[in-house]
Amino acid sequence: MADPKQERAVKTRKVILHAAAEVFDQWGYSGASISKIMARAGVTQGAMYFHFKSKQELAQAVMASQQEFVEFPPGEFGLQRMIDLTFYLAHELQTNVLVRASVRLAVEQGEFGVRDDTVYQEWADQLLLYLRSARERGELLPEVDEQEFAQMLVGAYGGTQLHSHISTNRADLPQRVASLWRYLLPGLAPEHVRSHLRIEPLPNGVAA
Amino acid sequence: MADPKQERAVKTRKVILHAAAEVFDQWGYSGASISKIMARAGVTQGAMYFHFKSKQELAQAVMASQQEFVEFPPGEFGLQRMIDLTFYLAHELQTNVLVRASVRLAVEQGEFGVRDDTVYQEWADQLLLYLRSARERGELLPEVDEQEFAQMLVGAYGGTQLHSHISTNRADLPQRVASLWRYLLPGLAPEHVRSHLRIEPLPNGVAA
Repeated sequence: MADPKQERAVKTRKVILHAAAEVFDQWGYSGASISKIMARAGVTQGAMYFHFKSKQELAQAVMASQQEFVEFPPGEFGLQRMIDLTFYLAHELQTNVLVRASVRLAVEQGEFGVRDDTVYQEWADQLLLYLRSARERGELLPEVDEQEFAQMLVGAYGGTQLHSHISTNRADLPQRVASLWRYLLPGLAPEHVRSHLRIEPLPNGVAA
Repeated sequence: MADPKQERAVKTRKVILHAAAEVFDQWGYSGASISKIMARAGVTQGAMYFHFKSKQELAQAVMASQQEFVEFPPGEFGLQRMIDLTFYLAHELQTNVLVRASVRLAVEQGEFGVRDDTVYQEWADQLLLYLRSARERGELLPEVDEQEFAQMLVGAYGGTQLHSHISTNRADLPQRVASLWRYLLPGLAPEHVRSHLRIEPLPNGVAA
């Protein structure tokens, strides 16, 4: 049964999170403030404090919503799909302020006194699903450890997007993701699998 | 001819940079202040403003000194040496506050309104020297593009150390660096070269 009061609270929380992500993307953590976020969200102080008590709590919630902000359409699993996800995420980082803000906060969290690897762990779990299905399909080399590869890829991808952000404001991110795959795939998949993989952005960043 | 006045200025600048790195490592950018750095360095306001006009200028100078802070002993070039460098840097990140602070500032520079990829570029140039000598020694696969690989490795390594910092305060960084190499080497070097490479930290992090 839907409780209208609870439904409203859920909706308000979402509105606040989106506004917070936009403000963090524009101002960074230190330039953001609860009052800027309240104004952007159009909520009262009472509503804000019902959901979030501090700027730090807001920042952590925005980081934690990272996967909600990425709407990768469901599809087949396996290696090609994992590669497509990395290009899709590159496109989202270029165009979606919510994704950008949450990734930025996850990277810069040390600056506001937080060390929380939940979001890194969630991405690793996500990648692990793709790698396990790739294993079932016979797409992986025998020596690959799926857990280890997932952990490694989360770190390597995170640094790739950061480097691209600092060098070109992420304009060259798709090319950098392609480079990463060019050198990782020979250690991941046998030649007859690799020769069928598409290592390039999907048209308009949209997943097939 | 050594000019004693100029010599003193160079020395003071170095003292200030080291103090600034220590303060940034401890407090982060937003928690650091010129007065904290002056106190740590034991210099007068006059000396400070002769060298640096703002906290941001100091942060940029600390970032730029990254390679000075890393004293990797000279030795042979080639692939093994490049791998050794990545483990040496991991050890430095664990134990040397100057290196840690400069890397942290380079990662979090977005937070203080700077986007400066000089330090990323310097590391890429450094790696390129190793890759070119590896090419001359016949250690690389024909399809490897040394420029592209250097760029890719700077990003992937930067993200690896960041992930390790957030997950375990860099306790597991050497293992993560080993994982990165385990999956990158098959795309970089032929089997007969790989079988002779040592993919592990040097004793006490000291370069051979």
